[in-house]
Amino acid sequence: MTYLSNFESIIEKYKVIFFDAYGVLRNYNGLFPGIEKTFALLEAKQKEYYILTNDASRSPRQLASIYHQMGLPSISHHRIISSGMLAREYLDLKVHDGIVAYLGTSNSAHYIESSRLKTLPVSLIDESNIDLVNVLVFLDDEGFDWCRDLNKTVNLLRNRTIPVIVANADYAYPVNKNEVSIAIGGVASMIENILGREFINFGKPDSQLFMFAYDLVRKTSMATKNDILMVGDTLFTDILGGNKFGLDTVLVLSGNTLSADRDALIASTGIIPTYICESAVVG
Amino acid sequence: MTYLSNFESIIEKYKVIFFDAYGVLRNYNGLFPGIEKTFALLEAKQKEYYILTNDASRSPRQLASIYHQMGLPSISHHRIISSGMLAREYLDLKVHDGIVAYLGTSNSAHYIESSRLKTLPVSLIDESNIDLVNVLVFLDDEGFDWCRDLNKTVNLLRNRTIPVIVANADYAYPVNKNEVSIAIGGVASMIENILGREFINFGKPDSQLFMFAYDLVRKTSMATKNDILMVGDTLFTDILGGNKFGLDTVLVLSGNTLSADRDALIASTGIIPTYICESAVVG
Amino acid sequence: MTYLSNFESIIEKYKVIFFDAYGVLRNYNGLFPGIEKTFALLEAKQKEYYILTNDASRSPRQLASIYHQMGLPSISHHRIISSGMLAREYLDLKVHDGIVAYLGTSNSAHYIESSRLKTLPVSLIDESNIDLVNVLVFLDDEGFDWCRDLNKTVNLLRNRTIPVIVANADYAYPVNKNEVSIAIGGVASMIENILGREFINFGKPDSQLFMFAYDLVRKTSMATKNDILMVGDTLFTDILGGNKFGLDTVLVLSGNTLSADRDALIASTGIIPTYICESAVVG
Amino acid sequence: MTYLSNFESIIEKYKVIFFDAYGVLRNYNGLFPGIEKTFALLEAKQKEYYILTNDASRSPRQLASIYHQMGLPSISHHRIISSGMLAREYLDLKVHDGIVAYLGTSNSAHYIESSRLKTLPVSLIDESNIDLVNVLVFLDDEGFDWCRDLNKTVNLLRNRTIPVIVANADYAYPVNKNEVSIAIGGVASMIENILGREFINFGKPDSQLFMFAYDLVRKTSMATKNDILMVGDTLFTDILGGNKFGLDTVLVLSGNTLSADRDALIASTGIIPTYICESAVVG
Repeated sequence: MTYLSNFESIIEKYKVIFFDAYGVLRNYNGLFPGIEKTFALLEAKQKEYYILTNDASRSPRQLASIYHQMGLPSISHHRIISSGMLAREYLDLKVHDGIVAYLGTSNSAHYIESSRLKTLPVSLIDESNIDLVNVLVFLDDEGFDWCRDLNKTVNLLRNRTIPVIVANADYAYPVNKNEVSIAIGGVASMIENILGREFINFGKPDSQLFMFAYDLVRKTSMATKNDILMVGDTLFTDILGGNKFGLDTVLVLSGNTLSADRDALIASTGIIPTYICESAVVG
Repeated sequence: MTYLSNFESIIEKYKVIFFDAYGVLRNYNGLFPGIEKTFALLEAKQKEYYILTNDASRSPRQLASIYHQMGLPSISHHRIISSGMLAREYLDLKVHDGIVAYLGTSNSAHYIESSRLKTLPVSLIDESNIDLVNVLVFLDDEGFDWCRDLNKTVNLLRNRTIPVIVANADYAYPVNKNEVSIAIGGVASMIENILGREFINFGKPDSQLFMFAYDLVRKTSMATKNDILMVGDTLFTDILGGNKFGLDTVLVLSGNTLSADRDALIASTGIIPTYICESAVVG
Repeated sequence: MTYLSNFESIIEKYKVIFFDAYGVLRNYNGLFPGIEKTFALLEAKQKEYYILTNDASRSPRQLASIYHQMGLPSISHHRIISSGMLAREYLDLKVHDGIVAYLGTSNSAHYIESSRLKTLPVSLIDESNIDLVNVLVFLDDEGFDWCRDLNKTVNLLRNRTIPVIVANADYAYPVNKNEVSIAIGGVASMIENILGREFINFGKPDSQLFMFAYDLVRKTSMATKNDILMVGDTLFTDILGGNKFGLDTVLVLSGNTLSADRDALIASTGIIPTYICESAVVG
Repeated sequence: MTYLSNFESIIEKYKVIFFDAYGVLRNYNGLFPGIEKTFALLEAKQKEYYILTNDASRSPRQLASIYHQMGLPSISHHRIISSGMLAREYLDLKVHDGIVAYLGTSNSAHYIESSRLKTLPVSLIDESNIDLVNVLVFLDDEGFDWCRDLNKTVNLLRNRTIPVIVANADYAYPVNKNEVSIAIGGVASMIENILGREFINFGKPDSQLFMFAYDLVRKTSMATKNDILMVGDTLFTDILGGNKFGLDTVLVLSGNTLSADRDALIASTGIIPTYICESAVVG
């Protein structure tokens, strides 16, 4: 487990590759230099690929457009599976009318809006509309006043028995080399503790994101779980989730998991990747 | 939410019904009187149905045979989806050779055995074979000496970095009107705490059991999630898992959830069934 | 356990009474009508009494002055034991110089300031002084910008290995009949989860607040734990803490614990008060 | 924090030394060679000392006798403070009659017995005496049948609303160089999870063990917290508990905390000892 494998020779063995985004393809500085060669190789070898991301702040279309601007024109929005898509599917299936209260930017809410469901930021919930609120969604850590709106959220949930969705279960995300920001999943977990409740969490390591991607794979190919490789930089989300879903997994050392810590971390967590690679950049 | 619905009129609206077993179809006394009428109605109306159970102590074939003996001859083993099947799928996909150490009866181990994988109870692991152990599975609370073998398990996992599977995540199960038994999920959780690790847990409320059943549904019909109803007696497993997967759900009051507590429990957990019924017995 | 006792006849049996403040003596509306009769009785009977409060937002002197203004002139600041006093004792004993970074109002910080230790709100920590920060204290939920300063706190603690004190471990507090506010203990718990650390929490149910009060009792009397009664409205803080410390306890139903829920709550938590009374108001 | 101090020059600065036992004075092989010189020095310099141990399986008298047999005749039972003493004090103060049900050896139960309270192992609780059981104590991991008696314990606690004491909160203890045993605290924690309750836990890092020792110190000397040094091998119990109580602390590297891990562990937990020493052996 302690030796490094060559990423190019690994992907050779699989038909479909699932990539985590942050720490694998890019970081706060933009795309990793050379990552476009990886996608050129995948196209040349006719491998299928998907990007699985715990990001609910933008629609897949908007996420794809960011990749295009950064210099990866080949990444279609059809290949991006976000935890926001699971939130949207939940609303489509389970909430038939009324208001979706949310914490996040108005841009993040736009994606979950539908003809049947009106979205409203928690800040605009008042006595006139509180009885119409049928679900609450944690979408993004930006776009609201934390003190005012989190207190309002606690009281809303004490008064209305409604389902609550956390569209991104991550606790924090890196913003530059030395600093992180608290993610909406960390904020949601505080509200869970205060209320003594467990919300519905989407995103890796939960199986539903993998299932969503696997359903897409099966629409266009005969690939089975044996043919799919999950590539990620985080043991607790990408590797644990991939393993549990039955996929082979690669831990790359270009993001959250430092080379110096990896063996100790694998031993102490028992989360064991099939392979370890320096990065997802080929040749 | 506080009114009771008629079970017969509910199932009318769906093409496929998923049932929990314990507390819904049967309890420690055997089948609920009249439950055979429910299955007769399902057959008459040509509804599909599956039984989703957090039981890894027996194979689906053995579980079906118990239903036959109790007087439900129509329940085929093809209709039983157990968390043991997920454990087996995991082993098939992720463990290629060596020994599967297990805690449980030899009967429970029989089902996860394969031509590639040899099963061995933890009690028989010793210096001669410990290096061949590639996975450990918690299968059943019976069949081993708790004090000796749980201590042995802790030391095995301190020495070998291997994946650990919990094939039944329940903490306890009822054995008669007044008493429960500690389930293997409760025992596994103790070992997790001692080691500071999280194992791979299968079974409701995790989505994979629902996904496994949904894959079977789609092989034989055009049904979508909108056409499926989950029937269960426990908010934290059946209803939470069903809701999260996007299914409509019925809470029945014939098992874990007492009629007197249900409204308080729903309000405090925020786990909201689509319907509440006295039981799954029709007319 | 299900019958109500008469508060006056209970206090007759003890030499010293410990009171929780909020929900026992007062709520958001001010003092409970008639509570002054309880203190008149205590004075007449020459009972010792202390108020034990998880409040670190004000000094005991300021807290006493609030009681004076509300109409209880007899409550001396010597009789008020707050979790802020434990925070201050910790700083006196364990932190010898440098800066105490804090989250809270400047008023709450004033009390923990000393000739050796300078206090500075987290918002004013920057590159010029970060290396002088030797401890961080969570004091109050007001007085800072949650989003900006909690993110800053996370990064401060990732960069400096320093002790962290939570001067009030409560997760929420009532602000009127229908609403609560998130307390600084709830906010601190989010930061603990994000960092994977446990901070030093003071306040009930922890024994140190009881010990601090008991040390004061022993300075002026021969009373032992058998002679002390703890009066509180919350099972998880007042009653659990009092029981564990070896005191007899009274649960009053004038605050957090509703009369309708009390028996179910006692049975499910196993936290058993010696007595239950309607309130701490006598005759 | 990364440099090692000389233990002899540290103890020079304090009037009273608190020692953890296991990993500091001894391990599974017996006393650490040379530790008798430490105690000779303490006697010569007229330092007070106490041994604070999370051990409820034996009385202080029996624990002292083991030190005598191993070659430390000077350790009087008056100097040994065990978490079993806290359990006994709790029973003395809070349980006035009836039966103390226990899990442990009959030897461990002997110490908590009194003229008012009869002890009975859980295995002997039956319909004839269950209504007399007024408290349950987790004492030792030996002396009972885990499967039978832990299941019996769960059902006893579902039927009787009584306080539960855990006399040793440790999850595991070393039995030789490579192996640990599950401690009664680990077992108790499983039962807590199954029942959804929190028991009363005594022992480090809880403050009550330190308070008990500090009360003894103050009976015979004018020493304050500033004069006391806590010596331990475990960050989470000895050092966290000592720090929180306001004592200076020494982490010794002769037990649980390996020299190679110590800096990473201190940084990730934020539990910071005042000093670090190779061991508690002088000269």
